[in-house]
Amino acid sequence: MTSPAQGKPRTIDDLDTPAMVVDMDKLQANINELQAYCDTHGLNNRPHIKTHKVTYIAKLQLDAGATGIACQKLGEVEVMVEAGITGDIMLCYNVMGAQKLERLRAVSQLTDITLTIDSEYTARGISAYADPNHPINLVVELAMPDFERTGVQTQEDALALAKVIDKLPGVHFRGLMMYPTTKPEQQQTAAAAREYFERNGLAPEIVSGGGSVDFHDLHRIPHATEVRVGTFNYGDRNTVANGVMTYEQCAQHFICTVVSKPTPDRVILDGGTKTFTSDMPQLDDPRSTFCHILEYPEARMFAQSEEHGHVDVSLCERTPQIGERVSVIPNHACGATNNFDEVVMHRNGEVVAIWPIWARGKIR
Amino acid sequence: MTSPAQGKPRTIDDLDTPAMVVDMDKLQANINELQAYCDTHGLNNRPHIKTHKVTYIAKLQLDAGATGIACQKLGEVEVMVEAGITGDIMLCYNVMGAQKLERLRAVSQLTDITLTIDSEYTARGISAYADPNHPINLVVELAMPDFERTGVQTQEDALALAKVIDKLPGVHFRGLMMYPTTKPEQQQTAAAAREYFERNGLAPEIVSGGGSVDFHDLHRIPHATEVRVGTFNYGDRNTVANGVMTYEQCAQHFICTVVSKPTPDRVILDGGTKTFTSDMPQLDDPRSTFCHILEYPEARMFAQSEEHGHVDVSLCERTPQIGERVSVIPNHACGATNNFDEVVMHRNGEVVAIWPIWARGKIR
Repeated sequence: MTSPAQGKPRTIDDLDTPAMVVDMDKLQANINELQAYCDTHGLNNRPHIKTHKVTYIAKLQLDAGATGIACQKLGEVEVMVEAGITGDIMLCYNVMGAQKLERLRAVSQLTDITLTIDSEYTARGISAYADPNHPINLVVELAMPDFERTGVQTQEDALALAKVIDKLPGVHFRGLMMYPTTKPEQQQTAAAAREYFERNGLAPEIVSGGGSVDFHDLHRIPHATEVRVGTFNYGDRNTVANGVMTYEQCAQHFICTVVSKPTPDRVILDGGTKTFTSDMPQLDDPRSTFCHILEYPEARMFAQSEEHGHVDVSLCERTPQIGERVSVIPNHACGATNNFDEVVMHRNGEVVAIWPIWARGKIR
Repeated sequence: MTSPAQGKPRTIDDLDTPAMVVDMDKLQANINELQAYCDTHGLNNRPHIKTHKVTYIAKLQLDAGATGIACQKLGEVEVMVEAGITGDIMLCYNVMGAQKLERLRAVSQLTDITLTIDSEYTARGISAYADPNHPINLVVELAMPDFERTGVQTQEDALALAKVIDKLPGVHFRGLMMYPTTKPEQQQTAAAAREYFERNGLAPEIVSGGGSVDFHDLHRIPHATEVRVGTFNYGDRNTVANGVMTYEQCAQHFICTVVSKPTPDRVILDGGTKTFTSDMPQLDDPRSTFCHILEYPEARMFAQSEEHGHVDVSLCERTPQIGERVSVIPNHACGATNNFDEVVMHRNGEVVAIWPIWARGKIR
């Protein structure tokens, strides 16, 4: 798996930059903490693989006790199934169109699969293509107040969709998917929906809840049976800014080189949007930045081009020199992961393995 | 080159989504217009391949009369050289570190190569690794006023760097690189720098100028000998917003499917940051959007997740339905290109070829 350009690295200091590295021990600690949390609160743990996109890491999560995994595109499901992960896979996507529906039918013959959907159009399409010997589970996505994303808008419409599913061949109504935060109105909506379904004779087998942003409070989401946490396994600047973890706990980081220092107050790194993505911070931030630099916490990446990160170091006590290597935590782990073909796994800087990121770039 | 998942598409309507397609005729028209413009004004044309990252398209540009190509990372140069493009290649990057310098030496034995640099550190590194039989050309990047990017800050410092280069073995001072806009103060800086170098006995053989943003005004940049235009060959929303071209001229577009319609005013497309990037508009925009939808010009993609584009259609006369396919022009062609492994080439919708994007993802 070692690419020729990388040679045979002994430590992460031998890697050419930009490089993406993950600390095995920190990763395992995060996996264990997530699992222990779920066990304590009687929640099933369904880690979202979009953060790492690595089949080996999905297996580490299942070994630790995860119920199954969550994927975001059909191509990610195919990669995981090909690697032998054939338990309980959730695909949080409205799959439609003949080409994808044929692929869905094929993969459903190799694994139990549950799709989250929000329309009758999606339900009827999946039903039409489903293999009757391998029915596909469907979960109705219910939108939360103030979230302008996907999802059926009211519990009444969600129930109507569930009743349609209940009558269609080749598909099986399995429950509800929601993304409630710990805000009272969202929790109330989520709790009310589950009770409403039970009162109306379609008790959900699973109610799938939130992600990393509210980690440590996920058990306060009423009536969730499982959680889908992705980013916490790696950690990123947003997760730290949200108070969920510390930089010390972040398993993933990026090594960059200072390739230019046009002024004493500005350095240019060899990573830009093609390395970190252009994802902005989740929280309002008077000193908005595209990343956190571990050795220079006062530095601010104020702009990017595709191959450059433009960093203001005017507030740093000492400033980095041209040729110096720095350790970068991006705003968004999942997006940055998608930019790399392989991840270098290490322990205290000693390279342990280089794992392919087979599920990267699966946009279909 | 046809991926199994795509089957054998006859027209672009047969493609699974999201798909990236390029109209052969529009692409050729843009290539020809750029070349004709350069010919008219006596400028050398050095198209920047970062927009398309496709070896075939680089050859179309050279066939039309381009002097050479520009690349942004060493890995892009290697891909182009491997495909037989061994003329005059410019790499606009401070290449440093033993691993990249060894690769640079190797590729310099197969092609004439010119690097743009902004520090003595970079110059000395390249010199130390250069093959004396294949000297590497160096061009000094001079920063323009108000541009907080790379580049030596003053013409005096630029000349000092050029004099260092002039004395180092294995490297050859070839000229200046700048990115002046048509603003008077930037043009003045650029013109003054060239004259200053000539007065001081280091007349630049080439002065490499700007890109797509100022296309049609590039000849007004004083004393440039060549231009590096990337985006204009494909076109994107920023290029149209800047008044450089029309949507009708854009050769590249993306086909997406409406996968959800949670409310009458909101539709969700199957392309988000992993398809289009999260690059924002270049111009201030009261109705900021991540893309332009050809069939629904009043629609606004107000938010994205990795796999979803969230579109406000409240101002549209009619609104798209679930399952409908739409044609999307993203803010930034180059970033979106980098998210795809292949580009579907078509004429009036008839698929002509599927070309691999060999130079995508070359972050090193």
